[in-house]
Amino acid sequence: MLTISQRGQQMPASPIRKLVPYAETAKKKGVKVYHLNIGQPDIETPKIALDAVRNFDFKVLEYSHSAGNESYRRKLADYYKKVGIDIDYQHIIITTGGSEAILFGFMSCLDAGDEVIIPEPFYANYNGFAVAAGVVVKPLTSYIENGFALPPVSEFEKLITPKTKGIVICNPNNPTGYLYSQEEMETLRQLVIKHNLYLFSDEAYRDFCYTGEHISALQLKGAENNVLMMDTISKRYSACGGRIGALVTRNQAVIDTAMKFAQARLSPPSFAQILGEAACDLPADYFNETKAEYLKRRDVLVDRLNRMPGVFCPNPGGAFYAMASLPVDDTDVFCQWLLESFSYNNQTLMLAPAGGFYGTKGLGKKEVRLAYVLNTDDLNRAMDCLEKALEQYPGKTN
Amino acid sequence: MLTISQRGQQMPASPIRKLVPYAETAKKKGVKVYHLNIGQPDIETPKIALDAVRNFDFKVLEYSHSAGNESYRRKLADYYKKVGIDIDYQHIIITTGGSEAILFGFMSCLDAGDEVIIPEPFYANYNGFAVAAGVVVKPLTSYIENGFALPPVSEFEKLITPKTKGIVICNPNNPTGYLYSQEEMETLRQLVIKHNLYLFSDEAYRDFCYTGEHISALQLKGAENNVLMMDTISKRYSACGGRIGALVTRNQAVIDTAMKFAQARLSPPSFAQILGEAACDLPADYFNETKAEYLKRRDVLVDRLNRMPGVFCPNPGGAFYAMASLPVDDTDVFCQWLLESFSYNNQTLMLAPAGGFYGTKGLGKKEVRLAYVLNTDDLNRAMDCLEKALEQYPGKTN
Repeated sequence: MLTISQRGQQMPASPIRKLVPYAETAKKKGVKVYHLNIGQPDIETPKIALDAVRNFDFKVLEYSHSAGNESYRRKLADYYKKVGIDIDYQHIIITTGGSEAILFGFMSCLDAGDEVIIPEPFYANYNGFAVAAGVVVKPLTSYIENGFALPPVSEFEKLITPKTKGIVICNPNNPTGYLYSQEEMETLRQLVIKHNLYLFSDEAYRDFCYTGEHISALQLKGAENNVLMMDTISKRYSACGGRIGALVTRNQAVIDTAMKFAQARLSPPSFAQILGEAACDLPADYFNETKAEYLKRRDVLVDRLNRMPGVFCPNPGGAFYAMASLPVDDTDVFCQWLLESFSYNNQTLMLAPAGGFYGTKGLGKKEVRLAYVLNTDDLNRAMDCLEKALEQYPGKTN
Repeated sequence: MLTISQRGQQMPASPIRKLVPYAETAKKKGVKVYHLNIGQPDIETPKIALDAVRNFDFKVLEYSHSAGNESYRRKLADYYKKVGIDIDYQHIIITTGGSEAILFGFMSCLDAGDEVIIPEPFYANYNGFAVAAGVVVKPLTSYIENGFALPPVSEFEKLITPKTKGIVICNPNNPTGYLYSQEEMETLRQLVIKHNLYLFSDEAYRDFCYTGEHISALQLKGAENNVLMMDTISKRYSACGGRIGALVTRNQAVIDTAMKFAQARLSPPSFAQILGEAACDLPADYFNETKAEYLKRRDVLVDRLNRMPGVFCPNPGGAFYAMASLPVDDTDVFCQWLLESFSYNNQTLMLAPAGGFYGTKGLGKKEVRLAYVLNTDDLNRAMDCLEKALEQYPGKTN
């Protein structure tokens, strides 16, 4: 019989996807749905970067270099220098989105059966890349009560086995918005050096920090060979559809190996490399405006949430996500109910139930992730809906 | 110790890459190098398709649907209809190049340790995707003497074990240019049905057939669940840098599984989907001109090669590659010598030694792959060089 592979069966479906049909049905009924469920920013892609694509002057859309255009890699190295990361362009491989950087990192460093520790809740797609690579994810729970701070070293060490090859972090974090402190990064530095682990650091949201400085894993002294940094232009320049990311590491053996995976898929997309390169020329104050906008939204969202009875939302230090615990029986059921059975002034909202962001089954049942990628007027309207919904929801717990 | 993964170590380097430094050195010495080593067409990307990208009117470069834009998938289904393949757009997933279609196909259908049979010589990057997926490639030798025709069924059956899950073909073939006949496709149809195997059919060069009609694996009646077709716009529209391909199968379980891999990487590149969609509107005679050009080049190349003493080049039926056997000791050495130690009128040529296209070690030592992606004047000049080189090469065998 023709069979689907084991890994294909294990491959998790998107935790958000199952709600999509309910959102579509609501829209067909004429209900306005506020999407707080996805990380698709509404911020405009910088015009200078879009124009660079419009003005391309080649006649043949050729393969680029497998590592990406050298001119772009050099400009990207300049960008990193500006944010305090000293890196040679030869230690950068341009990837097809941050996604491919994660895949190349896992494929180059990990074999089937190897283990990585990931503080949970975590970006659900890490599961997908782990399944593709046959890698076993060992989740280490962080807690909403302290805003999802890094779990203590002793908890990491309990999970370390001879099969443990790495730790995966996302900083600032998706889905929690948590920004790791200097001390936490130092803890991780000592941990990966002591146990000879790779540190896979997803820094997709580096440019959106509100409560402190971003410490890149690439800045950890003495851990140069341990650290692989995964980056993307998707959020930085609101260029999600470009599919341009980067794998950055000073570990030459890893770069050499990742290059073989890069060569097998020939090259990253050409058009959005032009966009990424042009965006490197944006003035330093470009992010100020975007950051100010996100900060305003965060403040509205967190304030509104914490005013609702029984709701708790720790203040996120970065990215554009917040996690909140709600006074409901099960956020999977609640989020579906919001779309299927609720509306207020003919409006409702779509949230991401947090269960899909936990590796440990059963956790996150009272939590949701909210992406503040809407303007404050819409956010306020969405919060009005949530407030009313929590009053009416039959599965309310307090 | 921090170690590179086993699969990372097994991952083959590009068989052509090792010659690149020699080509660069030759160029630095002022020698003109004719590149017959790569499949990067010089044909212009259709202006209508490039203009569609230039004229995009969005302000936010958003993620597309994980399966690709529905409008593009519908247009692509129309294109398939025009070439005799009746397929619903829901059986198409737009991928990041044909490369990702191969990866998704392998990941969805095959587990680590599973085997696939591939007639050799074959596209070297299949090895890379096989290593990434932990899949074992069982090469089945085809021979230059009969133009690399499909090996007989009995030879396939000798290789089939309980671990065999599929057969991979490329039609028309890279690197041989061989176009499978109706009879050969019928043989494959019966074989995969009899043994419950997947048929992974790479049809990147479908639009470039010179000696007969292209039979798509998707046209094989009764094998609907067996066939996965991998496609790309890279060669069809000379749009290699766009990184847009497609995985097409009527097997619903495979589509559902591949969609989970597609969701994990979020979406295919947006810009080149615009290009691909616009290209679907090209008039039916668009390919006539391109095909006529390739045909002219093929005829020049094959004629010139077969006039050289000791050289044999079967006439390829499709794609834009030819394989030739040369009267030399080792084409790895010869191809390096061409770049390092030879020039004629201050010119030389770069060829791909065929060894890297064989899974069986030691085969292909007298063969090279030539891509006829240069205009006929340049091709003739490159052949002048080859002719002189074969006279002078110290490792000549007859």
